[in-house]
Amino acid sequence: MRAIVFDKALSYSESYRDPQPGADEALLKVHLAGICSTDVQITRGYMNFRGVLGHEFVATVVSGSKAWRGKRVVCEINRVCRRCDLCQAGLSTHCRKRTVLGIAGHDGCFADFVTAPELNLHELPAAVSDEEGVFVEPLAAAYQVVKQCPIERRMSVAVVGSGKLGLLVAQVLNATGCKLIVVGRNPDTMLFCEKKQIQAVAVGDLVARQDQDVVVECTGAPAGLEVAMRLVRPRGTIVLKSTHAGQDGVNLSAAVVNEVTLLGSRCGPFGEAINALARKQIDVSGMVSRTYRIERGVEAFAAAQQPGVIKVLLKVNPR
Amino acid sequence: MRAIVFDKALSYSESYRDPQPGADEALLKVHLAGICSTDVQITRGYMNFRGVLGHEFVATVVSGSKAWRGKRVVCEINRVCRRCDLCQAGLSTHCRKRTVLGIAGHDGCFADFVTAPELNLHELPAAVSDEEGVFVEPLAAAYQVVKQCPIERRMSVAVVGSGKLGLLVAQVLNATGCKLIVVGRNPDTMLFCEKKQIQAVAVGDLVARQDQDVVVECTGAPAGLEVAMRLVRPRGTIVLKSTHAGQDGVNLSAAVVNEVTLLGSRCGPFGEAINALARKQIDVSGMVSRTYRIERGVEAFAAAQQPGVIKVLLKVNPR
Repeated sequence: MRAIVFDKALSYSESYRDPQPGADEALLKVHLAGICSTDVQITRGYMNFRGVLGHEFVATVVSGSKAWRGKRVVCEINRVCRRCDLCQAGLSTHCRKRTVLGIAGHDGCFADFVTAPELNLHELPAAVSDEEGVFVEPLAAAYQVVKQCPIERRMSVAVVGSGKLGLLVAQVLNATGCKLIVVGRNPDTMLFCEKKQIQAVAVGDLVARQDQDVVVECTGAPAGLEVAMRLVRPRGTIVLKSTHAGQDGVNLSAAVVNEVTLLGSRCGPFGEAINALARKQIDVSGMVSRTYRIERGVEAFAAAQQPGVIKVLLKVNPR
Repeated sequence: MRAIVFDKALSYSESYRDPQPGADEALLKVHLAGICSTDVQITRGYMNFRGVLGHEFVATVVSGSKAWRGKRVVCEINRVCRRCDLCQAGLSTHCRKRTVLGIAGHDGCFADFVTAPELNLHELPAAVSDEEGVFVEPLAAAYQVVKQCPIERRMSVAVVGSGKLGLLVAQVLNATGCKLIVVGRNPDTMLFCEKKQIQAVAVGDLVARQDQDVVVECTGAPAGLEVAMRLVRPRGTIVLKSTHAGQDGVNLSAAVVNEVTLLGSRCGPFGEAINALARKQIDVSGMVSRTYRIERGVEAFAAAQQPGVIKVLLKVNPR
């Protein structure tokens, strides 16, 4: 099958081995997929992953149990054992034996086919197009922010980073009615915020007042955390969404002195993301910068790293 | 007066200017003071402080209001405005205009005299000796851990670092009945734990199981946070107590993936610390490694940085 594969370098293959579904698994035919910053970080060494990249996608179930066959689906990315202490404790996204689609130990979705446990599938309602459905996984991760850190209208909240995830997080936060600013670098993505009536501030114009109740760090780089520390008030909260390759870090002494809470935050609730897209509460239409056929996937990765580019999609087997 | 002064280098002075108490302030004559890791970090550039070092001490009030004169006291270190938004919000230890005794903008206690707002004073009961009283400030910081992160008996808790603060935090945690381990480097300080029936593990012997509910990082170095990340369970909590000079930091991607909460934690409740010492719930008698006269303060700083040394005290005007 066709696939975008990372093995020390990124390449397009026309003869990658077809995946074989295991017990209780479905075989999915991929329609459309999205390139995430995590995919880019993997090509820089993050997670030491080798195999087919990709974990954001819409597909049709081609084989599996009768209840699922033919359904258009999105798919949770953690493949879990349901038996370890963490699964038993209700923390199955943290399963000690998990593999993660296109990130750790299991081939991802930048390919004609991918396999997944049926328990990971969510049917996509007709009201959500493929072009919207590819945003379910990152939008769920954005909803995880308000799950872990409840936001009230009275709160001042800043999103640092106006990339793919930052713009989704900003839209989720904006719906809470809080006092929201987005801090970014790129004029194009800032313009996207302004169209949504979200206040956007260029990082260079930022006056660090340490007055934000909550700051969500979505830049994918250690420098973003430094900006977040300048924004957050004493005893405030920084939600950490960024993962990146390398050893670079930030001296956390200021977080100690200001008694800041830092919350690591990863995957989120698919149901809420699907509902929000179906009800048009979240608008992703302006977020797709370019769409490439899978054959041009390597080029698509290069485009996804250009300044001002928000989301790049890969067309695999369009409906 | 006599003083230990940091101004690019550490020195002993016999002719440092006497401090002048302002309105609502007391003049304190210092009996005994303790060298803290923060003092050592300041000599390495932390906080860019210049002046008399020291913030852990017992003193007698020599001038001030009648109610305080002659009292034996310990003293909270944050000198606050009581008017800014944070003071008004009840977060006066985070006052935006604060100075901090011997740390930021105000001379400290390694001197014959020091001034302090009377609102910062706590009378020391007769049941607490000077040798115990010098531990009130760091012990209060240890109690802040359980204020910010309530500990239950069923919890597995690790303290990383068996230095001055680590041993105080360990004693506070041990009193909760939780399953406690102390991870350290130094055989002498580990022995102190064992005498208190606290399980001590050498960092080299550590098997990183990511199974601790709470980890308290007390090493004063970025490497301690790396150890903490290897110990904490997914969705667990790391309490950050370390401040240090320099730009070194830690890649927090693992905290994102494991959805760890990091809690910055600083100064704590003096009342609880004084009560615990008065009731002999916390035993600091084995923690004083050496006591020096103030004239030998520079030598005392060198001793405080030797392996195996726990607390070094400075005798200024003994009772």
